[in-house]
Amino acid sequence: MGKTYIFGHKNPDTDTITSSLVMANFEQKLGNTEAVACRLGNPNKETEYVLNYLGIEAPKLIESVEDGANVILVDHNSPKESIDNLENVNILKVVDHHKLALETSYPLFYRAEAVGCTETVMYKLYRENGIEIDKKIATLMLSAIISDTLLLKSPTCTNEDVKAVKELAEIAGINYEEYGLEMLKAGTDLSSFSIDEILHLDAKAIDFKNVKAVVNQVNTADISDVMKMKVDLEARMNEIINEEGLDLFMLLITDIINSNSQVIALGKSASLVEKSYGVKLEDNTALLKGVVSRKKQVVPIMTENA
Amino acid sequence: MGKTYIFGHKNPDTDTITSSLVMANFEQKLGNTEAVACRLGNPNKETEYVLNYLGIEAPKLIESVEDGANVILVDHNSPKESIDNLENVNILKVVDHHKLALETSYPLFYRAEAVGCTETVMYKLYRENGIEIDKKIATLMLSAIISDTLLLKSPTCTNEDVKAVKELAEIAGINYEEYGLEMLKAGTDLSSFSIDEILHLDAKAIDFKNVKAVVNQVNTADISDVMKMKVDLEARMNEIINEEGLDLFMLLITDIINSNSQVIALGKSASLVEKSYGVKLEDNTALLKGVVSRKKQVVPIMTENA
Repeated sequence: MGKTYIFGHKNPDTDTITSSLVMANFEQKLGNTEAVACRLGNPNKETEYVLNYLGIEAPKLIESVEDGANVILVDHNSPKESIDNLENVNILKVVDHHKLALETSYPLFYRAEAVGCTETVMYKLYRENGIEIDKKIATLMLSAIISDTLLLKSPTCTNEDVKAVKELAEIAGINYEEYGLEMLKAGTDLSSFSIDEILHLDAKAIDFKNVKAVVNQVNTADISDVMKMKVDLEARMNEIINEEGLDLFMLLITDIINSNSQVIALGKSASLVEKSYGVKLEDNTALLKGVVSRKKQVVPIMTENA
Repeated sequence: MGKTYIFGHKNPDTDTITSSLVMANFEQKLGNTEAVACRLGNPNKETEYVLNYLGIEAPKLIESVEDGANVILVDHNSPKESIDNLENVNILKVVDHHKLALETSYPLFYRAEAVGCTETVMYKLYRENGIEIDKKIATLMLSAIISDTLLLKSPTCTNEDVKAVKELAEIAGINYEEYGLEMLKAGTDLSSFSIDEILHLDAKAIDFKNVKAVVNQVNTADISDVMKMKVDLEARMNEIINEEGLDLFMLLITDIINSNSQVIALGKSASLVEKSYGVKLEDNTALLKGVVSRKKQVVPIMTENA
């Protein structure tokens, strides 16, 4: 049936990159020998840590696929986060853990669960289909779950994520807490990035009802390290607001040790942050205590208050 | 967590009614003791045959649920085919086999596969979760698969549907071919229906791009039996077109023995049928050879040509 291109969202994170690799392995085990792991952007430093740890290559970088091609989406379903010609390709499968944002004109395999990480769903797919999980695949999966759940501490983390990490750590022969902390810390190294790059590291375009927003999240072990760049960050954020016609740009600086986020909010709808969290923005910024999950603690609350 | 209302689409068919009953059983086995099988309309004659065969009650008839209620959707995901306040309830799960037409602001359990019947997916869920399938549940499941695949003959029928029916027939202790033909024939009995009722038996509102259409499908063992009512059917179809502002009303009269459909097409976009199938409508009607599946042989082809 020709190649099957497997990819996650733009601005790939560890879940998106590893899910592409793991799904390609899964498909090959099911007999789809032409399944190819792909990516729509470059791995971040956290993901590089994982790939280097295992000594494996990143998925193949693609910008688009030919019309009519077979694709499998992992870790996303929104056309906004996918290839531009998504409506002209044949989506065979989706494996995801996000809200629904995809319409199709044909039925397909769609597997999503309200768990912390796509790889937790992948783990279940391996189990259900009786497919063996080797050390490498186990390490890829557990890395993503640790990444998405901030070492099982995020409110997005479910019992199923915890169970998967523990079982996968057993297979991989890894102390997941030590490994996970090193991996997360590797992801907080911003030293080689320009201001513009920092603002695109994990940026998602999200509409809170009629509020056109971008929410970018940057993990750190020390919020003050990132806040040193506040003036430069704000200058560029304002430029992006003008360039893209945004109503709101939220930068979440997330403390992975203490599980809080400092938000910098700019744009004409910045007060939506105050309304949503009962905080006062001072000099465009506020501490959102306990907020670490864009999906669970930002999107629904901001949407409800918009 | 309070009641969980489980229901399929409006104008329920055998898959929708049995999936609601089976999903309630599945949820209860998983510990969700407040799961309640519901329905948004009355069982058709085919479904009544199944319920009578097993001596069980239909799911509870509901018209709506309270805002904020927990619901599980089976055999549909489109808001158009569901309760009116779908956007104000909490969808816990979807189990389906249709194209995607649902947007949410939150992640959820979504399980769809491109198979012939929702119950084939339910069958896999029981297996994956190691939950026992008793004779009653097996009979409900296989009835739906036979209904949706016209005794495994529809192009929507996959190997997974065939496998499920054979395994379920074993559990139920049923000769599925004999049972299935009796069940399908029970569904073709139109004697007690008014013209208007016939036109709403299995009617779905579908937009083929900008063409606002209703496609109604009626199964029969003899097309000429239904065509005797053509004048009266057309008169009422034209009324519905005016009442609902439709561009197209397609009535598919499907011969379950020979696997063809006679179509009656009315409305200003009726020529879309001619273009899509390379046929000439004579007196508003044409034979569509081999066409038995609205999902696989009508929706994609009409959409592509619209």
